[in-house]
Amino acid sequence: MPSLDRVPPGEIDTPVAVILAAGEGSRLRSGRSSVPKPLVRLRGLSIAERSVAQLLTAGVERFVIVLGCDAMLVRREFERVAKRRRCHISFVEATNWEKGNGCSVIAAAPLIGDSPFLLTMVDHLLAPGMIRDVLAEPPAEDEVALAVDHDAKNVFDLSDLTKVEVCEGRIVAIGKDLATWNAGDTGLFYCSSMLFEMLERAHKQGNFSLTDGVKECAAQGVVRAIDVTGKLWLDVDTPGAFQEATRRIDAAMAKGGEDGFISQYINRPLSRRLSVALSRTPLSPNHITLLSFFMGLLGAAGLATTAPWFWVAGGILIQIASIVDGCDGEIARIKLLQSPQGAWLDTVLDRYSDLAIGLAVTFAASQIHDAVWVWPAGFAATASFLMASYVTKEFQIRFHRPYPNNLVNKLKRRDLRILVIAVGAVMGQPLVALLVIGLLTHLAVFQILVSGWYATLLPSKVLTPSTKRG
Amino acid sequence: MPSLDRVPPGEIDTPVAVILAAGEGSRLRSGRSSVPKPLVRLRGLSIAERSVAQLLTAGVERFVIVLGCDAMLVRREFERVAKRRRCHISFVEATNWEKGNGCSVIAAAPLIGDSPFLLTMVDHLLAPGMIRDVLAEPPAEDEVALAVDHDAKNVFDLSDLTKVEVCEGRIVAIGKDLATWNAGDTGLFYCSSMLFEMLERAHKQGNFSLTDGVKECAAQGVVRAIDVTGKLWLDVDTPGAFQEATRRIDAAMAKGGEDGFISQYINRPLSRRLSVALSRTPLSPNHITLLSFFMGLLGAAGLATTAPWFWVAGGILIQIASIVDGCDGEIARIKLLQSPQGAWLDTVLDRYSDLAIGLAVTFAASQIHDAVWVWPAGFAATASFLMASYVTKEFQIRFHRPYPNNLVNKLKRRDLRILVIAVGAVMGQPLVALLVIGLLTHLAVFQILVSGWYATLLPSKVLTPSTKRG
Repeated sequence: MPSLDRVPPGEIDTPVAVILAAGEGSRLRSGRSSVPKPLVRLRGLSIAERSVAQLLTAGVERFVIVLGCDAMLVRREFERVAKRRRCHISFVEATNWEKGNGCSVIAAAPLIGDSPFLLTMVDHLLAPGMIRDVLAEPPAEDEVALAVDHDAKNVFDLSDLTKVEVCEGRIVAIGKDLATWNAGDTGLFYCSSMLFEMLERAHKQGNFSLTDGVKECAAQGVVRAIDVTGKLWLDVDTPGAFQEATRRIDAAMAKGGEDGFISQYINRPLSRRLSVALSRTPLSPNHITLLSFFMGLLGAAGLATTAPWFWVAGGILIQIASIVDGCDGEIARIKLLQSPQGAWLDTVLDRYSDLAIGLAVTFAASQIHDAVWVWPAGFAATASFLMASYVTKEFQIRFHRPYPNNLVNKLKRRDLRILVIAVGAVMGQPLVALLVIGLLTHLAVFQILVSGWYATLLPSKVLTPSTKRG
Repeated sequence: MPSLDRVPPGEIDTPVAVILAAGEGSRLRSGRSSVPKPLVRLRGLSIAERSVAQLLTAGVERFVIVLGCDAMLVRREFERVAKRRRCHISFVEATNWEKGNGCSVIAAAPLIGDSPFLLTMVDHLLAPGMIRDVLAEPPAEDEVALAVDHDAKNVFDLSDLTKVEVCEGRIVAIGKDLATWNAGDTGLFYCSSMLFEMLERAHKQGNFSLTDGVKECAAQGVVRAIDVTGKLWLDVDTPGAFQEATRRIDAAMAKGGEDGFISQYINRPLSRRLSVALSRTPLSPNHITLLSFFMGLLGAAGLATTAPWFWVAGGILIQIASIVDGCDGEIARIKLLQSPQGAWLDTVLDRYSDLAIGLAVTFAASQIHDAVWVWPAGFAATASFLMASYVTKEFQIRFHRPYPNNLVNKLKRRDLRILVIAVGAVMGQPLVALLVIGLLTHLAVFQILVSGWYATLLPSKVLTPSTKRG
């Protein structure tokens, strides 16, 4: 008996996602422990949580999980996921899941009704961007849409791939052993209830797989192909695919093109290793943000003394904090936990950390040197750090695009600034380091000010309501 | 002979605007000097420049001016406008403009070809927002669209209004003496070349006005009404209308809902008067920005001394600079000179000005008091000003909306901060004032940090590519 929790209407206009989690996962299991496949952890997240999280990230809010093998254990895991990720998950048990995954799909029918729905398998790694592409092309009333990849190079295991033949945007044939084919089935469907009808029809002929149902649909000419060539997707069903999944998740940890020199060559290589290690702990990205912030403050406290050995410790500590500062974002990307709140906390606390470090170095120098210029100079240098962050934000708002990550931008970034001060502190000259990097940062800010003044004036974009002057 | 400067193809997809500037403008002229109407100045801009500027602001880039009365003088003025506003203006002389303004429209035909075009009169004040609304509804191939206002309250001179009767979105009758009518002709058209044909037809029957041509179009049922009820539009053709135009331009000077307390009740009332006076000078908004910035620096120099009378002068100077700081935006709005560049310069220089003032006050205090806390305290207070500007920008970028102009926002605004320091300086206590407003600002920043943490989490908006964490 399926447990008929009703699927609530969504607040926003995204469909329900049906996730098939009924199978035995025997191929993966043989190579690993005996826990059910959805409970296997992949870089800190269970496969169950990852399957929900990637859909959540793409904007899907409501889920129907089809249970079968190890139903109790799998259900408990998804219930944990629903709580942690604050989403709505309904469950249904497929009594005859062993016959074929088509039976699992049919089990979800009573919970879905007539609305279009997404359909995928728990063990499929899908890039949120790919899911969004599919969401953008909802099926017509009696249509089934399937995301396909046209490049064989993107397929991890060709022999195991379900192949399709696409002709003028329609899928005309599907199966593992097609003689002619031109695309791969990624395992992400966007279906109307037509699919249930066709599965029933296949059923009557003794064919119980989802592919059999899709074949029936294709015979009617109602299967549309959605081209997602080049997007990340992977069927994690063998130990080899599991390793490949880990590799791809690690690759996605990197943030595209926004790093400075020091980040790129020193901080990131270290923080990535650290992030992989930390992803196994229950520490959230926000915990890491706070950890890095307080390490920075502790380092600043060391720099505020007049004891050179405390400077060495403080310098090392702020550089470690700067490395750890990269981990919050990385872990968020590994565990699909990105949020504007997390990014907000991270960037604002970084500003306070900069301020504390500049103040500490200046204070220590003022205790040693009795010169009138120490405070104004340290003050001005530290102010440059805030100005640098401010002008790039202001640039983005005024000119509707981020300030490019060019040389000037990299010179004013936090990674370089912290390293320079850390090295200066270790060498016994924190004030000199602060003043040098402050001067450099002021020059960068001035260059950004000038480049804003000459920013392209696209006539149609010159005046929109948000560009009013202060 | 019309001078056939070819209208170049536009880089972006906006139509050519035909501006009729051939008429005598006798009604306005009688009440004022004997200069041709397009040369009459209205709040610092000639009527000619204003007619081009309002279209430019809405995104129109190319203009055809129809000359007639005082052709040489009017042409020279528009040539100056083309140079100053960096836009392309072609000219054509209507030889028979005295017969009626329909003849002026026909004169533009050879320069237009088959493309749709905007049509208006030089003496019409049109809100850029209204022009944008019209641009959003281009005419079909054989159609003429006319912007109409359905509210008689928005009409300045009802007796002089060209009335229209709109029926199911079509204009079925037009004229000054209609018995039944339900809207007013705003004088802004978006036409296909159909209009030229119909004007020729009216011509043959001895009817030479634009309205006669539109009547012919209406008889064919091809005049669509674009509803712009409530947008600002005004036909500036009598001394009374001229005064009304001045009133409306002054009203548009105010910036909507972004001011703090001090701005609203002290700075703005003063800066508006100053802006009206300054709009008569050739000073550009950017000149005013720089003037205000250097006045602020000069004030800071006074505050950096240890002489109380210099503090009084410095305090008064920074408050005057703060008032003048409002004029750049006001003059930009009066003269339709808003630009993201101007806003950029203004906001970035304000940050440097804040920094200079905070540094000056702290420096002076450090010369008087021999206490170790003076510098750190002044430093931290001044940093709060930069943090306050930074967090609101960061908030806007992270959460895709401006931080609301609530109490917290108003407490951290520059108008209040400058007044508090100015009053403190005049009373001989600039450091106390700096520390008080710095503490208040830090509290406001903290409140903004917290409110960002609890900012609404619309599930579909949680993760877009731009919200990746740092």
